[in-house]
Amino acid sequence: MATVNAHDPILLVNDEGKHYLHYAQPGGSWFTNQGRIVFDEIIGQPFGRLVSTDKGQGFLLLRPTTSDLIRYLKRTTQIVFPKDAAQLVMELDLWDGRRLIEAGTGSGGLTLAFARAVMPHGRVYSYEARAEHQAVARQNMERLGLTPYVEMKLRDVSEGFDEREVDAVFLDVRDAGQFVPQAEAALMEGGLFGSLVPTANQVSDLLAALQAGNFVAIRVEELLVRPWKPVPDRLRPADRMVAHTGYLVFARKLNARFRLWGADSRQKRRAVEFGQWTTEDPHEVD
Amino acid sequence: MATVNAHDPILLVNDEGKHYLHYAQPGGSWFTNQGRIVFDEIIGQPFGRLVSTDKGQGFLLLRPTTSDLIRYLKRTTQIVFPKDAAQLVMELDLWDGRRLIEAGTGSGGLTLAFARAVMPHGRVYSYEARAEHQAVARQNMERLGLTPYVEMKLRDVSEGFDEREVDAVFLDVRDAGQFVPQAEAALMEGGLFGSLVPTANQVSDLLAALQAGNFVAIRVEELLVRPWKPVPDRLRPADRMVAHTGYLVFARKLNARFRLWGADSRQKRRAVEFGQWTTEDPHEVD
Amino acid sequence: MATVNAHDPILLVNDEGKHYLHYAQPGGSWFTNQGRIVFDEIIGQPFGRLVSTDKGQGFLLLRPTTSDLIRYLKRTTQIVFPKDAAQLVMELDLWDGRRLIEAGTGSGGLTLAFARAVMPHGRVYSYEARAEHQAVARQNMERLGLTPYVEMKLRDVSEGFDEREVDAVFLDVRDAGQFVPQAEAALMEGGLFGSLVPTANQVSDLLAALQAGNFVAIRVEELLVRPWKPVPDRLRPADRMVAHTGYLVFARKLNARFRLWGADSRQKRRAVEFGQWTTEDPHEVD
Amino acid sequence: MATVNAHDPILLVNDEGKHYLHYAQPGGSWFTNQGRIVFDEIIGQPFGRLVSTDKGQGFLLLRPTTSDLIRYLKRTTQIVFPKDAAQLVMELDLWDGRRLIEAGTGSGGLTLAFARAVMPHGRVYSYEARAEHQAVARQNMERLGLTPYVEMKLRDVSEGFDEREVDAVFLDVRDAGQFVPQAEAALMEGGLFGSLVPTANQVSDLLAALQAGNFVAIRVEELLVRPWKPVPDRLRPADRMVAHTGYLVFARKLNARFRLWGADSRQKRRAVEFGQWTTEDPHEVD
Repeated sequence: MATVNAHDPILLVNDEGKHYLHYAQPGGSWFTNQGRIVFDEIIGQPFGRLVSTDKGQGFLLLRPTTSDLIRYLKRTTQIVFPKDAAQLVMELDLWDGRRLIEAGTGSGGLTLAFARAVMPHGRVYSYEARAEHQAVARQNMERLGLTPYVEMKLRDVSEGFDEREVDAVFLDVRDAGQFVPQAEAALMEGGLFGSLVPTANQVSDLLAALQAGNFVAIRVEELLVRPWKPVPDRLRPADRMVAHTGYLVFARKLNARFRLWGADSRQKRRAVEFGQWTTEDPHEVD
Repeated sequence: MATVNAHDPILLVNDEGKHYLHYAQPGGSWFTNQGRIVFDEIIGQPFGRLVSTDKGQGFLLLRPTTSDLIRYLKRTTQIVFPKDAAQLVMELDLWDGRRLIEAGTGSGGLTLAFARAVMPHGRVYSYEARAEHQAVARQNMERLGLTPYVEMKLRDVSEGFDEREVDAVFLDVRDAGQFVPQAEAALMEGGLFGSLVPTANQVSDLLAALQAGNFVAIRVEELLVRPWKPVPDRLRPADRMVAHTGYLVFARKLNARFRLWGADSRQKRRAVEFGQWTTEDPHEVD
Repeated sequence: MATVNAHDPILLVNDEGKHYLHYAQPGGSWFTNQGRIVFDEIIGQPFGRLVSTDKGQGFLLLRPTTSDLIRYLKRTTQIVFPKDAAQLVMELDLWDGRRLIEAGTGSGGLTLAFARAVMPHGRVYSYEARAEHQAVARQNMERLGLTPYVEMKLRDVSEGFDEREVDAVFLDVRDAGQFVPQAEAALMEGGLFGSLVPTANQVSDLLAALQAGNFVAIRVEELLVRPWKPVPDRLRPADRMVAHTGYLVFARKLNARFRLWGADSRQKRRAVEFGQWTTEDPHEVD
Repeated sequence: MATVNAHDPILLVNDEGKHYLHYAQPGGSWFTNQGRIVFDEIIGQPFGRLVSTDKGQGFLLLRPTTSDLIRYLKRTTQIVFPKDAAQLVMELDLWDGRRLIEAGTGSGGLTLAFARAVMPHGRVYSYEARAEHQAVARQNMERLGLTPYVEMKLRDVSEGFDEREVDAVFLDVRDAGQFVPQAEAALMEGGLFGSLVPTANQVSDLLAALQAGNFVAIRVEELLVRPWKPVPDRLRPADRMVAHTGYLVFARKLNARFRLWGADSRQKRRAVEFGQWTTEDPHEVD
């Protein structure tokens, strides 16, 4: 039975479905407009139960998932969507032991997802140019106990990265296309590049930069989540949905000698674009 | 620099973009119709380079990602799509240390993704009723070095699960709705339920079963990946895409005493369905 | 130059993008909370210009399109979306001279689209069970000058239709599946059946009814419109979109003797379901 | 009962779901590889029945809809998709009496849909630069009896249009953005502009041209049709779908004096972009 430990993140949900993220700080309290919740009374309680304010307002006590945390963490920057975080962890192949560079850190929503994916043996090297964002992210990582897995650096991405031979680089910066050379320098051969950009114009810029560099398997995709109404006998999608968050761009760095393969430019182009196989039927395994 | 170790999975891509998954078995070879690749010559090579058959046919040598493995693993069952695996890992909150029950194992595509997410301290308890599927999955796990993190059981899900207080249960079986009680019995309070079902009829059945059980935050969603053509000056989506793989259904188990909360059935219903908040704007953090 | 004639529908748009539908009734006025617009001053004006209230509040004066009218007509029922109206007109093959039965009339949003498609030589026979809806629809048709093309009947669809040998029948009623026999009786051989239902359960019911009847080319589809932000140098989809309006179901009635073709049930099934060809690549013309 | 008249278009569907478009020419025949169909034997037959070759191969005889014709007409150019044709007819507000300029004609797929929408009192002025396309389109229009409603011109769009004060202009040409001034010159005040372009880059160019011109209500959208498998008890979308055909761009021409309204640039911008209201909830009628 999972119970609330001191300092744990906790999610409190009211009967309107509103979610509130807190940390069970000993001696602390949360003052709602319908009464107070004293954290010392929650510490030691099992998750999945109802707790009440001193005025009797009930809240459901849940253990926040990574997805919840991404949504409800304190932040100073645009939200990242859990669907995109999930796909980035998958397609950047982040699991125990992997070393990833992330730029920028933002409020740490993605840093959190990346750190939990590569822990305990991997590392996230997270670069951020603005101190105020980094401070928020650092606090978020500390509260979640993730500092052992995240190395934060205050630096503009244009100055390049300290690390070499990393497994993956993720760029989440304005003008990502301009920093492809820095990403390429840090990546190991065969390493994975990823980026999340909001506009089609940025996708074009980034693709051009990747094709000018030493990358193959360049591909672009967008991810749509369509929620449904959970009503068994009147089953149908929700009325509205998020139409766009950003474009995911992925590529793989090659060894520099690969360029020599280009005697036949058609072969080179095929290699560069073989990411298009994602449009083929993955049911047909070769 | 990542180099190929003996027994490593390797991905070979030809100049048509076809992908072939192999394992670098010492002494082994792969016979293509354009010559032979001897694995001993590949072991020790860095990934991200070009290798050739003895007849000069080039193949790109890549380190397969989890996403690649899901696509190209040997299998006897329907393919799982990496997008769905990614979302399940995220929404079932699988990371280092979590304990998950999976039923059924199938060919192990999801088992792989789950195991890499919860390793090294977590465990996947994977149930499968058919021995031939389990044998394939077992071989896949062994080849990938994941057996320390996966406990395989040959049993029909109707007989229930051995484990209790697990963090999450994932059902990928026909008639998933019928086995919700077994899932509920195994889950800890606040634990996460997930399922992937192909048809709308199955979604209805599963929702009814969850609503009859002790679950909240019940929600249904479908995930669409739209690939784009990676051409900077003629940027546009691909011509065709996968239209459907399955519906993802999630829920959270509550403590049994929560039922008492139902004096007001409207509150109960609200709680049961608060998963609908996903249709709200997640930019508006409370 | 199109100018406003007396009684014309007019669309007034303020500088916040709000749309107001009115009719240029001689002697009439529209009182906004920022002044009054006198219709006699608008009659004779060209569309596409700015008009002002007596207090100087500007409104753009536009000629409402069918799409605008569908959105802004007075109504007592659920809105129909122009995208669905457009697809229905196309797939029910409505053009000059066609005869269509519609049930129910609702507020007349679809009736309007259908009438304009089949005018001047065609007819819409529009059935409605509830007098209050019909009254609203009748007023809408009168204001738009469409009464010559629409024959309205106050009757429950269960009682069947007066017409025979019509080109198309469109059902927009609860439990559409129950009224397939009435639709079949009214249709000519080869005639087109269409329906718009909101839930997956209703789709199942309707499909079962069509397959029990004498129909082929049965198909189901949903139509999604994704709006983009019209910003050239930061081009991207809008943040949010309508996720669901309803499922469009289409079929074609066959001659009764077609049933005899069923000596080979596989052939029969193929014929019944050949609507599935829409999932094939329409670029490949046979 | 609709029966086949001499020269009618007919659609023949075999038991594999393949569709063949022919014209019932007296004295003519269609030779399949499973026997011959003599058109004189079909003339006078009702639609919706089974016909056979002299070798006993059955074909379903259907009256082709506009949607069928768009798909199966003889063509020398890219296919137009019925979903886009439908939306264009709706959003360009094409109905009896409207006058539309179309450039280019292509093979006449859209011309057909437009002509049937505006007939009998309206006209389509269809411009095409290449004689070989026009010849195919002309033949298609003749066979379908639509020549009274279509005026075809062999001319490059850069030379402008002969007509003035038309209700709508539709551009389906490479570099549509370059020809916005010609479109603007031909349109009446309040008239509707539309275009269908395949790439995001072209959308950017076109938007910039429209914003430089005298247009409001500029909007961009894409239309997705998702087909479902018509199986009542295993209801689910089809496996694959068309992911992209093109972007629909719409705008309305204003009276030139509207430019003066721009003392407040924010108001001007609002007006220019009010097409964004399509991202608002159309259920909320003002």
